[in-house]
Amino acid sequence: MEWLLIAPLAALASIITAVYLFFYVKKQDSGTAKMREIASAIEEGANAFLKREFLYLAVFVVIMAIVLGVLLPKPIWIGETVTENLSLASAYVFGSICSALAGYFGMAVALKANVRSAHAAKEGLNKAFPVAFRGGAVMGLSVVGFALLGISVVYYLTGDPEIVLGFSFGASAMALFAKAGGGIYTKTADVGADLVGKVEMNFPEDDPRNPAVIADNVGDNVGDVAGMGADLFDSYVASIAAVMILGQAMGLVEVTLPLIFAGMGILASIIGVGLVRVGKKGNPGKALNWGTYLTCVIFAVLTFLVTYYLEFNFGIWGAAVLGLLAGVVIGITTDYFTSIDRPPAIKTAEASKTGAAINIITGFSYGLISMFPPLLGIAVASAGAYFLAEAFGISGVYGVGIAAVGMLSIVGMIVAGDAYGPIVDNAKGIAEQSGLEEEVIDIADKLDAAGNTAKAITKGFAIGAAGLTVLALLAAYQEISGAVSFDLMDPLVLTGAMIGIAMPPLFSALVMLGVGKNAFRMIEEIRRQFREIPGLKEGEEGVKPDYATCVDIATKGALKELILPSVLSIVVTLVVGFVGGIEALGGYLGGSIFSGLIFALLMANAGGLWDNAKKYIEAGAFGGKGSEPHKAAVIGDTVGDPFKDTAGPSLNTMITVMSLVASVFAPLIVMFALSP
Amino acid sequence: MEWLLIAPLAALASIITAVYLFFYVKKQDSGTAKMREIASAIEEGANAFLKREFLYLAVFVVIMAIVLGVLLPKPIWIGETVTENLSLASAYVFGSICSALAGYFGMAVALKANVRSAHAAKEGLNKAFPVAFRGGAVMGLSVVGFALLGISVVYYLTGDPEIVLGFSFGASAMALFAKAGGGIYTKTADVGADLVGKVEMNFPEDDPRNPAVIADNVGDNVGDVAGMGADLFDSYVASIAAVMILGQAMGLVEVTLPLIFAGMGILASIIGVGLVRVGKKGNPGKALNWGTYLTCVIFAVLTFLVTYYLEFNFGIWGAAVLGLLAGVVIGITTDYFTSIDRPPAIKTAEASKTGAAINIITGFSYGLISMFPPLLGIAVASAGAYFLAEAFGISGVYGVGIAAVGMLSIVGMIVAGDAYGPIVDNAKGIAEQSGLEEEVIDIADKLDAAGNTAKAITKGFAIGAAGLTVLALLAAYQEISGAVSFDLMDPLVLTGAMIGIAMPPLFSALVMLGVGKNAFRMIEEIRRQFREIPGLKEGEEGVKPDYATCVDIATKGALKELILPSVLSIVVTLVVGFVGGIEALGGYLGGSIFSGLIFALLMANAGGLWDNAKKYIEAGAFGGKGSEPHKAAVIGDTVGDPFKDTAGPSLNTMITVMSLVASVFAPLIVMFALSP
Repeated sequence: MEWLLIAPLAALASIITAVYLFFYVKKQDSGTAKMREIASAIEEGANAFLKREFLYLAVFVVIMAIVLGVLLPKPIWIGETVTENLSLASAYVFGSICSALAGYFGMAVALKANVRSAHAAKEGLNKAFPVAFRGGAVMGLSVVGFALLGISVVYYLTGDPEIVLGFSFGASAMALFAKAGGGIYTKTADVGADLVGKVEMNFPEDDPRNPAVIADNVGDNVGDVAGMGADLFDSYVASIAAVMILGQAMGLVEVTLPLIFAGMGILASIIGVGLVRVGKKGNPGKALNWGTYLTCVIFAVLTFLVTYYLEFNFGIWGAAVLGLLAGVVIGITTDYFTSIDRPPAIKTAEASKTGAAINIITGFSYGLISMFPPLLGIAVASAGAYFLAEAFGISGVYGVGIAAVGMLSIVGMIVAGDAYGPIVDNAKGIAEQSGLEEEVIDIADKLDAAGNTAKAITKGFAIGAAGLTVLALLAAYQEISGAVSFDLMDPLVLTGAMIGIAMPPLFSALVMLGVGKNAFRMIEEIRRQFREIPGLKEGEEGVKPDYATCVDIATKGALKELILPSVLSIVVTLVVGFVGGIEALGGYLGGSIFSGLIFALLMANAGGLWDNAKKYIEAGAFGGKGSEPHKAAVIGDTVGDPFKDTAGPSLNTMITVMSLVASVFAPLIVMFALSP
Repeated sequence: MEWLLIAPLAALASIITAVYLFFYVKKQDSGTAKMREIASAIEEGANAFLKREFLYLAVFVVIMAIVLGVLLPKPIWIGETVTENLSLASAYVFGSICSALAGYFGMAVALKANVRSAHAAKEGLNKAFPVAFRGGAVMGLSVVGFALLGISVVYYLTGDPEIVLGFSFGASAMALFAKAGGGIYTKTADVGADLVGKVEMNFPEDDPRNPAVIADNVGDNVGDVAGMGADLFDSYVASIAAVMILGQAMGLVEVTLPLIFAGMGILASIIGVGLVRVGKKGNPGKALNWGTYLTCVIFAVLTFLVTYYLEFNFGIWGAAVLGLLAGVVIGITTDYFTSIDRPPAIKTAEASKTGAAINIITGFSYGLISMFPPLLGIAVASAGAYFLAEAFGISGVYGVGIAAVGMLSIVGMIVAGDAYGPIVDNAKGIAEQSGLEEEVIDIADKLDAAGNTAKAITKGFAIGAAGLTVLALLAAYQEISGAVSFDLMDPLVLTGAMIGIAMPPLFSALVMLGVGKNAFRMIEEIRRQFREIPGLKEGEEGVKPDYATCVDIATKGALKELILPSVLSIVVTLVVGFVGGIEALGGYLGGSIFSGLIFALLMANAGGLWDNAKKYIEAGAFGGKGSEPHKAAVIGDTVGDPFKDTAGPSLNTMITVMSLVASVFAPLIVMFALSP
């Protein structure tokens, strides 16, 4: 059974490739002293955030590990499951460490790649692109590498998929801190920098006099690199763990099958990353998309071969490919609703002619419409995978789980493209702050625009993947809890569902209000610096703002504002479970999946749309920059910022965390619930 | 069995009281020539809208009646059910006529009460209040009177609850036109009048020079009087029909029980209406609320007595009272989130200090939070009613239905309070346009403020009632279709649910975009009039704008923009049913209930909140009227307008229509669905 080693070997190959790319990036020239100075300020800020985040995370993880170790799978005082209790707690800690490692490593290289790609831009687009993209690829390959290696280790040591679920739960703790905390951080800095710098002082974007400018650049990294990486790490691991549980319960399918498929996905991603390149006059956005499509095809071929040689069921292969196809379709339709050259963005831009209110109503309306195609895509993919699996004699629910695994198999490539975005965004910022030539900034701009296109697709992809993953987790939860059905006409299921649908809106409201509160503190600090540091406003030689305090405010505030929503999403889940019982908790998860998907899609798409409507006007339409329609569109964009970068993307993580809490605590709920 | 006559007799009593109040209002003095002139312009505009609306409605109803008559309960060419086919089609037409009659009658008196209460305001608050309130009560009592009389006639003629469902379906057609069409109309006129009149011309509100001012006043009537009346007529009838179907299926409970309870609700409302009064220095808002509470108590006592004497099951009585209590709790908590003197509104007002975007994010966030209490309320009420009924040996699902009937029993009183709002709003407008003294306008203002408070509570109430009603309809649908369960783990149910949750957002987006398009036409027309009518801008003696064209534009546009969302909500429901089968359709309804409730609550509450945040600033806070924070708050309020007056309230109607389509077509779907 040497093929059992496919997964850990593929994972190792991924980590080795990441290390190779890390050294490739590191050996590039990091430019002028001025550039290095800015880059190291960003690096310091990001490390300060990570340090504090890891501290909070460590406290949280230790407490949770103790709770898990004492209580699960059975209370330790019963004495029947002492080894399992210890294994579960250890797997939990290990999961959070693996995700943190991937995030740390990915961010370390992103913080080197930004300045190096800015410098390489002096020699042309085709020199700068590989530096940035390979920098992003380190994050992508680290995520899948550490994730699959971690799962393999846990499973080969314990042989118990429920312990793998503990590993997944640990990863979700990291995701919560990185994604929601990072999301609050990034918008705190962005809103603060914009409202005082751009609006009050009339400074341009990325002006070095602005005390929040470094915090803003740090935010792109902690939100989009570390946050998105941890989020997809979380979904990736959760989908595999859920499918292992379903496979074991069925007894028909090889439990490690999803590991092997994931291994193929990693190999496909490594090849895909290697094939992405762009010519001198090339289009980096197209190159990124072609890389993704190629990876999909390679994955389909590799898994076909594996299925053939290892004599797996071809229904499973079909379900995996179906899931992957759905991911691509969701990405493309999402792209339609947010692209700058499509009717939704253009009409929203046009609506700005009658003021900010109509701009907002129009963008919000298109955001509402935009959820139709992806929801239909998830519906068709899950139903298709179900019936395909059944037609091949496999449990349909297993097919749905495999569709999630298929969709997530190319996460290495997806995260690579996504992490590319903040790297080139930073590169542009560094180029501007260090006063590079106009044509270099132009190239940096082109690289940045490609990042935005890639980001829209990956966001749709991430939401779709999270949707299928939580459906698989719901199935795993049913398996573990032994619930017969989640019938909407059962009053407990219905009651659970009503509370469940209220949770994602509550969570997003709390993080958005958190951004508001934190931005307020930041604004006060920026104003104080302009007031108290002589010569800062005027940009006198040698006068520098106190970047570190702004970074500190954003950091502390983000982690503080994260506490209430995180605790609520865990505590309410447990209360519903222990009071309402397993069926109520199933309904609750179902409800939270529904409204979580709705708001994630609405916020991501409306936010992207407002952003591009503004850019469409800035490109010269309806009066261009500085006109009344432009001012209206800026208001829409500012509303969209916390939608698309804080609340929307955090919802994926939140519903995954709630689903994992339910599955992990299910044995305890079965024992102690008030309601039968 | 003379007590079978309770329902029709109570309904007749309601209609007779309404007629009596109509004459009471009519005999009041209608003021000066100027006032009468304005009032008759509003009356003409409203009648023009109603006439065209009824025309469209008639075409729609005739087509649907033919479809129903030919196809249901079995295709007529099979020849087994010719009489039932004709009955169903006739009941459908009859339902739409009864609702239209109630709307027509109620609006006719509202259009008389407005000018008369403005005139009575000259003699004091305690003279003006009863004119306005009794004017509103005509609408309230007409709605319940015509509804219950209609149901009684249909049931006593056919003895078949499924034919009563056809009656309900007819009423829902009227609700769709009146609520969604009226909602588009009212915001078209409002936005048009504000953007040109207030913003471009700097006219005050309700300035007679503004060509859209009459359309705006008409809008209050067609949206809030006729629309809300038809909406609650719809929920009221649907809940009773659903419970009759459940009662017949169970065989244990008297089928006509909900009719008798509804009859008691009517008697309670008549008494409640009679008891509402206000002193010279009294508070009209408190008077309205006390009227509502009193009506609740009277209903509880009357139904207790009926239950005792007719030996009904006390579990049913408990469920009805529980539903009513939940309605009150939902109303009160909703009030918290929208009231001008509570933290959400004050903090949203404060957020305006940092601009429109933060105002919008803050208001939106509180709107997201605000859905928690009502969803919990619906959850607790439905679960409580379920288990209470079961504890008394009755089917739990029947208990849920009865909770809906209980909540809706006092609709007569609720609509009375709600229709009072636009009457006093109009009265204020007439007082201002005809140049009455400052102190009269002050009194009109006080009456208007009370209307806004009452409106917030009734909106929450209407959404809660719609929520419980569609749950009862879902149960009725299950009964008719014979579906075994709606298990979320069934792939067809899940697929249906994914499509179902996407429908309410799609519907609200289409009506909001419809408002935008229609307002654009209106703005062009207003600008044209200012350009082409000499002396209009300057307000020269004898120069009058062309009010009628504006009314016409709003009317035609509203009905045109209504077509696509209405057709979609019917067609997609049928497609899901005929392609996916009965289980998929059940999931679809469940999904649409979830997201329909979410968006209805979010939009109603956020909209009300932005409105009051603006008013809080206008009352002098954070710089007061004309300051930068005020401008920001005005943008928030303008975003909220189509939220709270168009999209949000239309969702109740939409999910009821979809549920009724499913239930009415269920027999056909069972026969012809592609999926088993």
